[in-house]
Amino acid sequence: MKQVICFALTGLLAAGAGAAIADEGMWTMDHLPTKQMQQRYGFTPSPQWIDLVQHAALRLAEGCSGSFVSANGLVMTNHHCANACLSQLSKGHEDYMSSGYVALKQEDEPKCPDVELNQLESITDVTAQVNAATAGKNGADRIKAEREIGSKLEQACVSGDAKTWRCDMITLYNGGRYAMYKYRRYQDVRLVFAPEQSIAFFGGDPDNFNFPRYDLDVTFFRAYVDGKPANTPQFFKFDTQGPKDGDMTFVVGNPGSTRRGLTWSELSALRDDQLVPTYALLSEVRGVLWQYARAGQQQTKESEELQFGIENAIKVYSGWLQTLNDEKFIQQKQQQDAGLRQWMAATPERRAKYGDPWSDLQHAQQRSKDLSVRFRMLERGVGFGQFAQLFQDARTLVRAAAERNQPDGQRLPEFREANLPAVQHEVESDVPFYPQYEQTVLAWSLGKLRQALGADDPTVHEVLGKQSPEQLAQQLVSGSKLGDAAVRKQLWDGGEKAIEASSDPMILLARKVDAESRKVRKEYEDEVKAPTDKADETIAKARFDREGTSSYPDATFTMRLSYGKVVGWNENGEPVPPFTHFDGLYKRATGADPFKLPDSWIKAQGSLDMSTPMNFVSDNDIIGGNSGSPVIDRQGHAVGLIFDGNIHSIGGDFVYDGSNNRSVAVDTAALVESVRKVYNLPRLADELTQGHL
Amino acid sequence: MKQVICFALTGLLAAGAGAAIADEGMWTMDHLPTKQMQQRYGFTPSPQWIDLVQHAALRLAEGCSGSFVSANGLVMTNHHCANACLSQLSKGHEDYMSSGYVALKQEDEPKCPDVELNQLESITDVTAQVNAATAGKNGADRIKAEREIGSKLEQACVSGDAKTWRCDMITLYNGGRYAMYKYRRYQDVRLVFAPEQSIAFFGGDPDNFNFPRYDLDVTFFRAYVDGKPANTPQFFKFDTQGPKDGDMTFVVGNPGSTRRGLTWSELSALRDDQLVPTYALLSEVRGVLWQYARAGQQQTKESEELQFGIENAIKVYSGWLQTLNDEKFIQQKQQQDAGLRQWMAATPERRAKYGDPWSDLQHAQQRSKDLSVRFRMLERGVGFGQFAQLFQDARTLVRAAAERNQPDGQRLPEFREANLPAVQHEVESDVPFYPQYEQTVLAWSLGKLRQALGADDPTVHEVLGKQSPEQLAQQLVSGSKLGDAAVRKQLWDGGEKAIEASSDPMILLARKVDAESRKVRKEYEDEVKAPTDKADETIAKARFDREGTSSYPDATFTMRLSYGKVVGWNENGEPVPPFTHFDGLYKRATGADPFKLPDSWIKAQGSLDMSTPMNFVSDNDIIGGNSGSPVIDRQGHAVGLIFDGNIHSIGGDFVYDGSNNRSVAVDTAALVESVRKVYNLPRLADELTQGHL
Repeated sequence: MKQVICFALTGLLAAGAGAAIADEGMWTMDHLPTKQMQQRYGFTPSPQWIDLVQHAALRLAEGCSGSFVSANGLVMTNHHCANACLSQLSKGHEDYMSSGYVALKQEDEPKCPDVELNQLESITDVTAQVNAATAGKNGADRIKAEREIGSKLEQACVSGDAKTWRCDMITLYNGGRYAMYKYRRYQDVRLVFAPEQSIAFFGGDPDNFNFPRYDLDVTFFRAYVDGKPANTPQFFKFDTQGPKDGDMTFVVGNPGSTRRGLTWSELSALRDDQLVPTYALLSEVRGVLWQYARAGQQQTKESEELQFGIENAIKVYSGWLQTLNDEKFIQQKQQQDAGLRQWMAATPERRAKYGDPWSDLQHAQQRSKDLSVRFRMLERGVGFGQFAQLFQDARTLVRAAAERNQPDGQRLPEFREANLPAVQHEVESDVPFYPQYEQTVLAWSLGKLRQALGADDPTVHEVLGKQSPEQLAQQLVSGSKLGDAAVRKQLWDGGEKAIEASSDPMILLARKVDAESRKVRKEYEDEVKAPTDKADETIAKARFDREGTSSYPDATFTMRLSYGKVVGWNENGEPVPPFTHFDGLYKRATGADPFKLPDSWIKAQGSLDMSTPMNFVSDNDIIGGNSGSPVIDRQGHAVGLIFDGNIHSIGGDFVYDGSNNRSVAVDTAALVESVRKVYNLPRLADELTQGHL
Repeated sequence: MKQVICFALTGLLAAGAGAAIADEGMWTMDHLPTKQMQQRYGFTPSPQWIDLVQHAALRLAEGCSGSFVSANGLVMTNHHCANACLSQLSKGHEDYMSSGYVALKQEDEPKCPDVELNQLESITDVTAQVNAATAGKNGADRIKAEREIGSKLEQACVSGDAKTWRCDMITLYNGGRYAMYKYRRYQDVRLVFAPEQSIAFFGGDPDNFNFPRYDLDVTFFRAYVDGKPANTPQFFKFDTQGPKDGDMTFVVGNPGSTRRGLTWSELSALRDDQLVPTYALLSEVRGVLWQYARAGQQQTKESEELQFGIENAIKVYSGWLQTLNDEKFIQQKQQQDAGLRQWMAATPERRAKYGDPWSDLQHAQQRSKDLSVRFRMLERGVGFGQFAQLFQDARTLVRAAAERNQPDGQRLPEFREANLPAVQHEVESDVPFYPQYEQTVLAWSLGKLRQALGADDPTVHEVLGKQSPEQLAQQLVSGSKLGDAAVRKQLWDGGEKAIEASSDPMILLARKVDAESRKVRKEYEDEVKAPTDKADETIAKARFDREGTSSYPDATFTMRLSYGKVVGWNENGEPVPPFTHFDGLYKRATGADPFKLPDSWIKAQGSLDMSTPMNFVSDNDIIGGNSGSPVIDRQGHAVGLIFDGNIHSIGGDFVYDGSNNRSVAVDTAALVESVRKVYNLPRLADELTQGHL
């Protein structure tokens, strides 16, 4: 399911989700629903169990989850979470994305240019400090105050060692609670093993979000410290048998975002003003990439990472639209809203306490309608190649140079001291640069810019002058040196002086549009985000006052635990069993992409136990960002590896339906069997079964 | 604005529009609102005026409008209505789409392979006959009865001479009235003059649906009869001055379809289940074509006709979605529905008379939701290259062969005797065939088929077998001989035997999927279309009973007259003047596509009168299909040539807003001035000013 976070919308809306029913819920580690777990499953996690889970689980900073699975820093995550690393390490005729990668010995483990792992060290409640700083403030003042206190608290938390620590202030329950998440950073992350794309993503886009499923969507990394495998005593032991039907399962990971607490008026505005246009935009990019890739193997390689992300995002958008067009869901939401609204207005005290956040929302939505196209094009960078590299790097360099001269608390949040190492790491990473691909995406984007804002828009005039999008893209890509990591490093190190002295056309473009982009961002934040946040907070508080506690906050790409069980579901009246097995994989293989098995699997067919479970489903409540999460059992052993949800899970962004929402995982039995017998890697197989090198 | 009819939706829904206000209305020639015209403008059309308008106006069978503008068969229409002809006539290095075409003498006028003109001869009310045939019938029975009576009446109308006459039974006021439209056919249509694409479509997609505007979107054809220019005494004389601000104007043409009479529940289902998915699909095709065209001039030429149509359709869809997401419009519609529904249920008599069409609609909409993806993919052919040529031809050949063996009244309507000549003409036309383009579109389409129906769908299995979409497309395009017009003619002439004997892979594919495609069509027609039609009819009748007459029917791609005036509008508080002039064109030219002037216009700059009006707007109520319509004045003289509407006109599909809905036309002054001074064609200029050769 991948990090849909890349395609996040302009709306940064998030509100508290409702009280949990069935196996619903993405729970924070410091407020687990132990009573419910005990009632439903007779299981209460011990403090040791919780401590293990918290420290063995990992976040991939770019938008996935993972976990330690040996004492020597071995990390399990999804193949699709390693796409960037696999592409970037591929050189010349080698293409690790498609052929896979095997490190036969430790010296063969190459460093991924751009992967950072975060291990959660602690969670500290900072609600009181934040509330004190923002009390009585609105709009731009409120944003400023929140940024300043956030920066102050984060810096205190990192306490000068940003190489080791990363601290993020997280807004939970839509401002009902604020917490400081402190992570240990691992920036030296190396590649150990990845299978072929054709088995990792067997069934391709047709099977994506579907089940029955037969994917080996795994990559193993290894965290290094001081050039040696990290010492990671807290890890998930591998259960080589996998789970059984009905077994209790837990998923620990970093669900990206959910919007279960939004009102219907917010959801309908989201649907009409953001999801539908973005859905169409993504569809168009898909068409461009599809045709681009047809030109040959090189072009396929250049575009496949984005292609994958786009295909995936389109399915997600389509699923979202399905839920948001569902009459039953709409009525249910409208009734909830009406009931709450009535309750809030029922007494003079409540009216005084809550005011009328509903009208504030309506006004903010109107402003969002006015501003969102400009915001997307200029500030999100859709009009300058959001899906390419050069402009993103140029903007980062231009802004970082300016922001680093500001006091930390007054910076754009992404350039706060706490974030700078990750930003610098990304901009200086030596990733391959593909001029033809870059020019394609850029020319397309500039065409969109002109189309969306109109040929008469002053910013469009200033960007294009008398050139066509194609001409300008050609000039920018052939003229810019930003494809070279060394040049980017120089510009980063040189700061504002270097930026001002630079005649690189992409830097010049990023500077040219910076003021206008910042302006629309500020308008959007002041007139849409701040009033929406405030109204959402008021509504969330009223909901708490009315409904009581025992709820979980909407997802925020931070660690959450979900509990549930291995269980199938009914599709059109037919039961879907929860497991698939190796024999089904071979039956489904047609020999034609994306149902074509790699040679390794064809060769190994005779030696494999065909009854080995391959993938399974459970009713754990997960969402994008959970990719790469381990599935664990009551003992805290790994029994699976989350890599997707079924088609009904997509609507989980807005509502959890336990009757058919299912997570999809690789069975640990399949992982061990294939590492040993398909890939003939006794060293890795032994590390998995023994828990150490 | 082009014939958006190509991208028609699965919903064939259409209902009577409401009572007209302001200059609203697309009126049938036999029921003109003479009282309103007299009241508002002091003008009552004489019988001679009406007769002239009816016979000088033309329909292009493929989806545009036109008119005779000389006594010798000279036809004025849009450049964008001649795209197919211009592409098809281009051979080798010549590209008439981009370079334009000039016939210096009559012998230089080449025949367009695929253009048919229809001149309206008469309208006959056949309501009584149809009602008698369908009385008391429902579902499939009702469709069958309507088809049989339609066929019978059409055949009687053509009376054995289908080469000369074409008769279409038209459903008006959503079944409130049926009429037989009898047309004279012109199938020998030749190209006289077309300007360069860069001036015809100056401003390209960025300016499309916008104003101020500077387009010379014209093509002149000539109708021939027996190898000689047709004798056409009824034509619109050219007013070489064009109209003035405030002048009364008429537009006569063939608006394709409007949906002003639909209920909100129909419109919201339309939006969510059809417009949004199709909008995304079109966006994806746009991406594919954009990248395809970048490969070179040849690829640009191959794809530009579809590219143009897609760009245009996307703007239309986007405008539709804007109206259908407009809170004010939604509330207005909901209130209208609620009022009518209440009125229909207010007395026992009414309840007995009308029943509950609202529940019937809801049920039909649910079935539409279930069926529409399959319907689009299989029956509309989206999954087999709806936007390409081979499969369309193969399906036509396969179905025509089978249907021609059926009694006329039992055939699919498109294969009735009355339609056969046009179908045969199209399938046998010697149009260029581009294998690379064909394979591209086909591979993409087959991928969509698999994606939409799922890899496990039996029809998908049967089509693809173990091949990938790319492999199958390659095999079909390289193996099929249907790109050759002679082969198509053989298969047409050979009928069912030839089809059964054919081993052409595309014929085999069309045969393979025919039963399933017909099945889903029948389900859709019986369970969605028929009950929807019946419910719409009931609601439309109730509306008449309540609101009285003086309304006009929703558009049906048949002749309509709109009256109005030359008038600007206010955009964001600023007035938009109704005229543009030559000097503005030169100011707007940047030298870069799509704002690059052709050499002819650069050279002619010194000799032109810069104050010549170029384009103008009026508040005439038009819609897609009106492209190429003449704008005429009280004298029945041509003063302009409709080629677009402003951005507010798109929502006109659902509601006419006289405050800002504007049609956009080329001024006749610009036409005469440019034909004479830019293109140096005294022969054509004289024919325009004198009205004969």
